[in-house]
Amino acid sequence: MVGDNIPRIHSLIDVAIARESQILIFTGGLGPTPDDLTTEAIASYFQTPLVENVAIVEDIATKFAKRGRTMTPNNRKQALIPEGATVLPNPIGTAPGMIWQATTNLTIFTFPGVPYEMKRMWQDTAVPHLKTRGWGKSIIHSQMMRFRGIGESTLASKVAHLFDRPNPTVAPYASKGEVKLRVSAKANSIPEAQQLIAPVVAEIQAIAGNDYFGSDDDTLASIVGSQLQARQQTLSVAESCTGGGLGSMVTGISGSSSYFLGGIIAYNNRIKTEFLGVKSADLIEQGAVSEIVAEQMALGVKQKFQTDWGIGISGIAGPNSDDTQKPVGMVCTAWASPDNNVVSHTFLYGEDRARDLIRYLSACDALDGLRRQLTP
Amino acid sequence: MVGDNIPRIHSLIDVAIARESQILIFTGGLGPTPDDLTTEAIASYFQTPLVENVAIVEDIATKFAKRGRTMTPNNRKQALIPEGATVLPNPIGTAPGMIWQATTNLTIFTFPGVPYEMKRMWQDTAVPHLKTRGWGKSIIHSQMMRFRGIGESTLASKVAHLFDRPNPTVAPYASKGEVKLRVSAKANSIPEAQQLIAPVVAEIQAIAGNDYFGSDDDTLASIVGSQLQARQQTLSVAESCTGGGLGSMVTGISGSSSYFLGGIIAYNNRIKTEFLGVKSADLIEQGAVSEIVAEQMALGVKQKFQTDWGIGISGIAGPNSDDTQKPVGMVCTAWASPDNNVVSHTFLYGEDRARDLIRYLSACDALDGLRRQLTP
Repeated sequence: MVGDNIPRIHSLIDVAIARESQILIFTGGLGPTPDDLTTEAIASYFQTPLVENVAIVEDIATKFAKRGRTMTPNNRKQALIPEGATVLPNPIGTAPGMIWQATTNLTIFTFPGVPYEMKRMWQDTAVPHLKTRGWGKSIIHSQMMRFRGIGESTLASKVAHLFDRPNPTVAPYASKGEVKLRVSAKANSIPEAQQLIAPVVAEIQAIAGNDYFGSDDDTLASIVGSQLQARQQTLSVAESCTGGGLGSMVTGISGSSSYFLGGIIAYNNRIKTEFLGVKSADLIEQGAVSEIVAEQMALGVKQKFQTDWGIGISGIAGPNSDDTQKPVGMVCTAWASPDNNVVSHTFLYGEDRARDLIRYLSACDALDGLRRQLTP
Repeated sequence: MVGDNIPRIHSLIDVAIARESQILIFTGGLGPTPDDLTTEAIASYFQTPLVENVAIVEDIATKFAKRGRTMTPNNRKQALIPEGATVLPNPIGTAPGMIWQATTNLTIFTFPGVPYEMKRMWQDTAVPHLKTRGWGKSIIHSQMMRFRGIGESTLASKVAHLFDRPNPTVAPYASKGEVKLRVSAKANSIPEAQQLIAPVVAEIQAIAGNDYFGSDDDTLASIVGSQLQARQQTLSVAESCTGGGLGSMVTGISGSSSYFLGGIIAYNNRIKTEFLGVKSADLIEQGAVSEIVAEQMALGVKQKFQTDWGIGISGIAGPNSDDTQKPVGMVCTAWASPDNNVVSHTFLYGEDRARDLIRYLSACDALDGLRRQLTP
């Protein structure tokens, strides 16, 4: 990491040259504001003048017009690249990057710092550029396996015998709401790597059983979506503590309108009784955060919205408990099935967990519970 | 950045020693799995044995028990620290860190890689530890000013005369759904820094007007929440393309139950007519993504839920349009006020924007529109 500071960027280029690096990749610092110094610093290091690229100016102006905004003078700065450099187009943002053969031995790439812009440009332009120049003959290809319902350390101890393999390698990762194992193979082509990966993936799947839910771009929401689509079944949700987070997760999947009808955010208890048919007596006796209330929410929304499945969530996201003194992190979730059978579960996410995380995990486990019921 | 690799971690310590660094801070690699090598690598570099810390073992066992899980043998690994090191407790996760005076001149800190655990431990333990040892006498204190409704380049050009100031400095940032200006002062104390910052903040506020919505930990949801609380007014939401994302954003604020009653996720058009009173004729003639439909959604949910305010959102999140061929990124949002007045606006987020981003920005602007109506 290097600051927005020309002398510090120059010393970084010194290091790259001293290491005889052949490729130097910069991300960030390509924007319109005075602290965006990357291109200027690179050009001045190699004493090369900056020239305005007409195509970039036009592209930026078009993008601003499309969003109904006017280009400001400082945006023209983004069109300056060192003489001799090639523009690396940015299909989804305003700041383009560049590819520049700065010296015989050193090629410099710049990308904007916005991750999704950078990734897209890397895939679309930089990778093909490098491949035609002989890079990337031997490749590393990975399959990221995703798990829910098992802790990182438990999963790791079950597959520990795979961690010392040289090729493919297996490495564990934990992130918000899931545990992952990355199976990576080094090979001469993607098909060859996939062949090396397949038996290891199969072995892990056999060990993990239904705690494995998908790989790579799969999410709990995409998997549940495919399952519902395959069965031609529909879903609705009734949310209290997640406040819409489950619906938002479900509708994050393009095409979810074919199986998701909608839901009721019943944050207030009056909404739970009036719109979901939750019994006031149960709210008073058991409290809003109880399996009986979650069950009535799931059944209520399923019946109101006339869907095959209904999910109800009621919990304490914290940082404070409700008047029942139930622990923060206690979340009751219920699933109503096409035959009006309801099952429920109480999750204890831990009183030390942050509000956002408790809400996020609640939505994940609501989907995971449905996934398990939909799995043959 | 350094890989999970002992020789590479050793060369990193070599670099720190060659630079005569007095403090070396590691994050990550403290977990239970075999690729978590940080502590082991540090101990072996200084040829110091690892010893099991009984307090850590007990703490981890307690935390597992609280979440209803069993500690696996590999979790014991997290209790190993170099002889002579002090445990840096982790109040919200299992992996603790350490503070270790490795040599007379070098103190090593380790933190888990999970950002919210690391930040909490840094604030709670590392900062006080360093302060008592004479560090941090001169401090840098910042106020992060937050804006919505103005682009980064437009804002930057309006405050360009402030970018060259030495103290406090002003630096622009852009992130998802907002533009930020960080005003930072170097001083001997926080109050002294605040005194330097105040006039610059006031000047920027005057320039930006209502596009400035808050600073530091403020969010659009927290600001709208405070405004509603101050007026003792309530809110409900009717969401189509955001699928619950707006409700989720509103309920991300602890205490939101005092002003947020809930909402209807009307993803399907049948739900829009049956539960929100949207007219079928308007859905057919204008399409679901139209201001007239958004207005009926806002009024419908406000009346059904008996709240002071109602918000309706209907849009095309992409990647595909609906059967009307309206552009991806077109989102119609409406606000119904306590006197049943409804205003609406059509946002064009751009066809090149990702589905998630369009949904996120839609929720931000729905809140921002309410904020502007609630601002005196």
